[in-house]
Amino acid sequence: MKEIHMQQMKEDVELVEEAIRSYIPYEESVNRQKRVIDAMRYSLEAGGKRVRPVLVLEFCRMLGGDPKNALSSAAALEMIHTFSLIHDDLPAMDDDDYRRGKKSCHKEFDEATAILAGDALSIHAFSVIAKDNDLSLDKRIKLIDILAEMSGYKGMIGGQVIDMENENCNDVDIENLYAMCAGKTGALIRCACIMGCISTGADEETIAKADRYGSCVGLAFQIIDDILDVTSTTEVLGKPVGSDAVSNKTTFATLMGIEKADELAAKLTDEALGILDQFDRRDFLKDMTHDLLVRIK
Amino acid sequence: MKEIHMQQMKEDVELVEEAIRSYIPYEESVNRQKRVIDAMRYSLEAGGKRVRPVLVLEFCRMLGGDPKNALSSAAALEMIHTFSLIHDDLPAMDDDDYRRGKKSCHKEFDEATAILAGDALSIHAFSVIAKDNDLSLDKRIKLIDILAEMSGYKGMIGGQVIDMENENCNDVDIENLYAMCAGKTGALIRCACIMGCISTGADEETIAKADRYGSCVGLAFQIIDDILDVTSTTEVLGKPVGSDAVSNKTTFATLMGIEKADELAAKLTDEALGILDQFDRRDFLKDMTHDLLVRIK
Repeated sequence: MKEIHMQQMKEDVELVEEAIRSYIPYEESVNRQKRVIDAMRYSLEAGGKRVRPVLVLEFCRMLGGDPKNALSSAAALEMIHTFSLIHDDLPAMDDDDYRRGKKSCHKEFDEATAILAGDALSIHAFSVIAKDNDLSLDKRIKLIDILAEMSGYKGMIGGQVIDMENENCNDVDIENLYAMCAGKTGALIRCACIMGCISTGADEETIAKADRYGSCVGLAFQIIDDILDVTSTTEVLGKPVGSDAVSNKTTFATLMGIEKADELAAKLTDEALGILDQFDRRDFLKDMTHDLLVRIK
Repeated sequence: MKEIHMQQMKEDVELVEEAIRSYIPYEESVNRQKRVIDAMRYSLEAGGKRVRPVLVLEFCRMLGGDPKNALSSAAALEMIHTFSLIHDDLPAMDDDDYRRGKKSCHKEFDEATAILAGDALSIHAFSVIAKDNDLSLDKRIKLIDILAEMSGYKGMIGGQVIDMENENCNDVDIENLYAMCAGKTGALIRCACIMGCISTGADEETIAKADRYGSCVGLAFQIIDDILDVTSTTEVLGKPVGSDAVSNKTTFATLMGIEKADELAAKLTDEALGILDQFDRRDFLKDMTHDLLVRIK
């Protein structure tokens, strides 16, 4: 990424993280609930690249809006994403003790607290948008509607359900893999792009483009992840590789073969970049998309 | 309860249950997510008295509104209530295998499905209100705002957190018990009454009365439950008594003594009934309140 875009990304991330903290303050009135607030903030602060909230702010900016008007959406979306990670890590789900080098929420606190912290984050996301009086009622309802749609059983949670079903299934087909990926990875990325548009009052045509861009990026990202799990090394990637093979998991790489998967990822990346080319202020997002998706060579 | 009110209650419950089913349809597009939809519907259909959604419809009716305009709120609130029960029953929480004589969600399905079904219900509640085009944008935002506030870490979930903390605490005081009860029992009952008001466009003064009525009913209901656990029999109550003593739980009955607890419940019941007396079409709600709260003698 260009230096100037790295700086812009850093500023976006700082804005989002500050907003998140301000939306979950420690207050006298909730002293008794401190433990769950600690757990919510612990997982929110565990970091990651903040891809989703940055996409919200930058779609807003690309369309000529002030990213500050998209901050409640960006924070809300990151809350939903974090809630899904907390619940995903639970013993009954993926049973992960660590996430990004830090203890997962139920290990740092306990299972009951992690369940409740996830629940509280998912609910609070809607509160944050509903209370943003700087946005028109119409925008707030559209934002809440898309956030609920994309994170619910037709979106992200739906993807988790399909993933769970696939684990008990010996012949996962490509349609199934697409559906799972559209939910687990695609839904919140699409949601980010769409929320950025809504915050500027964009028209349906623009929203449809952002939606398609998000679908392409989400799917390409997952395919590339699957490929790297086979072809890369732990040193290059900075995280363990070969885990899909160990768990005998069906992925785009195992189902299509590396070459075809690679071709599909490249095609989707081109389509995503082509969509951005239709906008004037596209430089940052093109650079970010490149950074996210052109990781193989 | 009077025969005519029993009939009205039955009609309300039927309306709500039909609405709930219509809000979570089996559709071609979510065939792969059938398992989680099954789990959501299983727990929603497990019944109970539907006190909260009936309060939504009846506050709306008492203020001269058409209960049909409050149906999305009633269904959304019942989804939130059901989600909290599903997660409450999980092994890491209360570890209950049965609820109302039926297997709890994680026993009928599995833990992962129960976690996801709860998550999906809590998110879908907001979707249902956001998509209700028969309500003005202003009403929808107010409804979503109060629902998120009352069910989140400052409300219902906050109460669950305090309850969890109290279990590891030897000297739970009365303030703590009030705070827990206000969250666990009070928040969604207050929310029901307030949502009924909002659906008719009621003013702040009316909403404040409904809010106070809800607080009184929620607290009185919990106190009476605590008393009955000591004084009643399994035959009369239709559920096991003495469970608080067995688990050495601090309750209003153990902390205040039966007599004082009884006095407080009576005082709160009187206040709740007194609030209803300020409204013209109060007959049904007075009868229902009496039925809920005058269970001791």
